[in-house]
Amino acid sequence: MVSPKNPLIIGMAGFGTVGSGLLRILVENKAHLFARTGREIKVKTILVRSPKKTRTFPLPEDVRLTTNPDDLINDQEIEVVVELMGGIQAPLDLIKKALNAGKHVVTANKALLAETGNKLFAIAKEKGLHLAYEASICGGIPIVETLKQGLGANKVKSLLGILNGTCNYILSEMTSKGLPFFEVLKKAQQLGYAEADPTLDIEGTDAAHKLALLIRLAWGVEYPFSDLPVRGVAEVTASDIAYAREFGYRIKLIGEAQMIDGRLEAGVFPALVHETLLLSQVSGAYNAVRIDGDAVGPVFLHGKGAGDSPTGSAVAADLLTIARGHTPDNTGFCAPPLPTPAAVIPPDEAQSHYYIRLLVLDKPGVLRDVAAVMADNNISIAQAIQKGDCDDGLCPESPTKPFVFMTHKASARGIGLALAKLEGSGFVHQKPVCYRVFTNHV
Amino acid sequence: MVSPKNPLIIGMAGFGTVGSGLLRILVENKAHLFARTGREIKVKTILVRSPKKTRTFPLPEDVRLTTNPDDLINDQEIEVVVELMGGIQAPLDLIKKALNAGKHVVTANKALLAETGNKLFAIAKEKGLHLAYEASICGGIPIVETLKQGLGANKVKSLLGILNGTCNYILSEMTSKGLPFFEVLKKAQQLGYAEADPTLDIEGTDAAHKLALLIRLAWGVEYPFSDLPVRGVAEVTASDIAYAREFGYRIKLIGEAQMIDGRLEAGVFPALVHETLLLSQVSGAYNAVRIDGDAVGPVFLHGKGAGDSPTGSAVAADLLTIARGHTPDNTGFCAPPLPTPAAVIPPDEAQSHYYIRLLVLDKPGVLRDVAAVMADNNISIAQAIQKGDCDDGLCPESPTKPFVFMTHKASARGIGLALAKLEGSGFVHQKPVCYRVFTNHV
Repeated sequence: MVSPKNPLIIGMAGFGTVGSGLLRILVENKAHLFARTGREIKVKTILVRSPKKTRTFPLPEDVRLTTNPDDLINDQEIEVVVELMGGIQAPLDLIKKALNAGKHVVTANKALLAETGNKLFAIAKEKGLHLAYEASICGGIPIVETLKQGLGANKVKSLLGILNGTCNYILSEMTSKGLPFFEVLKKAQQLGYAEADPTLDIEGTDAAHKLALLIRLAWGVEYPFSDLPVRGVAEVTASDIAYAREFGYRIKLIGEAQMIDGRLEAGVFPALVHETLLLSQVSGAYNAVRIDGDAVGPVFLHGKGAGDSPTGSAVAADLLTIARGHTPDNTGFCAPPLPTPAAVIPPDEAQSHYYIRLLVLDKPGVLRDVAAVMADNNISIAQAIQKGDCDDGLCPESPTKPFVFMTHKASARGIGLALAKLEGSGFVHQKPVCYRVFTNHV
Repeated sequence: MVSPKNPLIIGMAGFGTVGSGLLRILVENKAHLFARTGREIKVKTILVRSPKKTRTFPLPEDVRLTTNPDDLINDQEIEVVVELMGGIQAPLDLIKKALNAGKHVVTANKALLAETGNKLFAIAKEKGLHLAYEASICGGIPIVETLKQGLGANKVKSLLGILNGTCNYILSEMTSKGLPFFEVLKKAQQLGYAEADPTLDIEGTDAAHKLALLIRLAWGVEYPFSDLPVRGVAEVTASDIAYAREFGYRIKLIGEAQMIDGRLEAGVFPALVHETLLLSQVSGAYNAVRIDGDAVGPVFLHGKGAGDSPTGSAVAADLLTIARGHTPDNTGFCAPPLPTPAAVIPPDEAQSHYYIRLLVLDKPGVLRDVAAVMADNNISIAQAIQKGDCDDGLCPESPTKPFVFMTHKASARGIGLALAKLEGSGFVHQKPVCYRVFTNHV
């Protein structure tokens, strides 16, 4: 924040959607960025695979394309390497080399950081460099900064997020139009909201990567990524969405973590969210995170979770931090310097409200028998919908009808045992459907 | 973020609600704050008016109370003065002295900063010190940091906020329970949501102070505080809330600013907010801000806008920044170093959709005549509600009935001229009611 300094010279790796968005911001908002930091922020070299490819943002004359990573690493003028390549191994190598060459690194690579971030944080810490990653969680929402800084004095009690725009778009469209999953997925692919191979998104892996990073930022601990319970959205049906609405809920893909007596419970899964919670109102490709801090109470952040400009905005925010000369605080904690393994609540022991849909035999006494199985497993039913007719194709085997209910708080294990018992009971047809529920008392 | 350093020693001025909340956080989350920063954050001395008064948070043994400001200013050990006194002149003197003595300052004093902030920012800038004020806008919501940093690379197009929890509580209660303003105000006072003298809140001044600070952070310019158009909530009636709902809107006290072709339009006023906007869902004493950035698009932040712990959380966030050794960036801009006067769009020229309620003579041709007056002033009616009966006490003079409509975009001047014409027309009784409208296309 002192008088004009040397320009901050950037080397970019990758020139796809986000790279183009970032370059546009740095070029179009150049004077604004100078006003904010007192330094010009200037891209010198971009590492690409195909130098001849046409770009969505035209390359300024003084920016050089290269296919050789060493042109970033060995350039003494380059102070920051911005990694926007995607993938794991190539960016890992590049980031290591950049840090070892004394360059700050900014990355949007959630998969890399979630799965192998700690070794990179260790190098950055040792070298006193920034390894910044605002863009890796929820695009343009400034959630990394908020957890490190704005809410940093709080012990976080819980966080709850809609972390994947593709899944949220699909569930929103299913909800507003009553369409089945695969039909909406196809439309999302046509509109560019879903990849040709949507696996990472719809299976919940992308949300899980973001959740792993959020957990580190909130608590300074590591939930072993391969142990994180993850469930995708492909199994969500239009019928469950409709039943959820009858109870006053929306079905959302939720990434969730809470610290309970020093142990962490976390997971990614479709869940019912009460319509009085702002999270239930997040529509289309938007993302949102709700953080509950011990001092501040619940804070809710909402914005675009992907796209060239929103994600570019987040990368540029990290460049501002570096240009301003702030001290690196990459993990948000310095004691211990790196995330330590979390004490984890086994997923089976997680307590929650549940939504359950059964296809039951349409004869006297069946509901009593279902209730008895639930009671045997210490599960009490909070609300139920008994459907008299079956006009939604859910009852292929007649005479059957759906029985839909919500429980009071129960453990995942208790629910699992009760559902297994019901499945083998003879009076419940098909596999029971079961989702966690976030009530208005979150 | 390096190995353990000396403690960060704090002198606090004021030990009321926020002071107690802050002290509680610093004591109860001491280990957590050390883990975040590598420094102990420790209150040494608190300036109070009445040392014998009982406090809501018990004073730790090693904290000293004083009635002499010099015990903060002249103490070489004290690195940061936290100003939580309230008022204008005493804190102004204290902050000046603290900065001149080389101490960082953290304050929650929105009135002081809005009305006379620049001279303090100038001293802080000259001395290279932090003058931090996260707690002065919307309590626990990290909006200051977000505008400086997380969205700092964006040119802000507009910001729209619910900046006063007292007003929002009152309007929310009027909306959900159909009660009149003064009845709800009395209840709010009994519950402690409104002051005994609620003038600053209900007349919109408090929201205007916050808006002035937001404008500086977003654009680095100064809207002359005394020129800012401000309208309070006391005139909002349960009937207008009910009509607004019929159109799909809620009435909220909105602080609003937008940059249009380099000129700033801003104000504080009750307005209709479309129910699909998250802002319309902000209930009770919560605050929220929606920032529309050129790159990131709309970002929405929501949380508790007041109270000991949320506001204490924001003060503590500023202490984290200082403990981490970040470079001061108090105004969020360094070129120019201080906010410059804004080029302002005269309030009369502001374009908006409007809600208008008239009490018209119940006879043929009146609606045609109203429409003609509007058309003469280039205002077109978008939607109308014609009420046949009058059961809500709005029509003391029979035969009259309410005529309620919303306009397409029009200038404030055009609306003013049309309403003046209607008022003098003979077929409109009572003063017309008129509010700005934020549609779902904000």
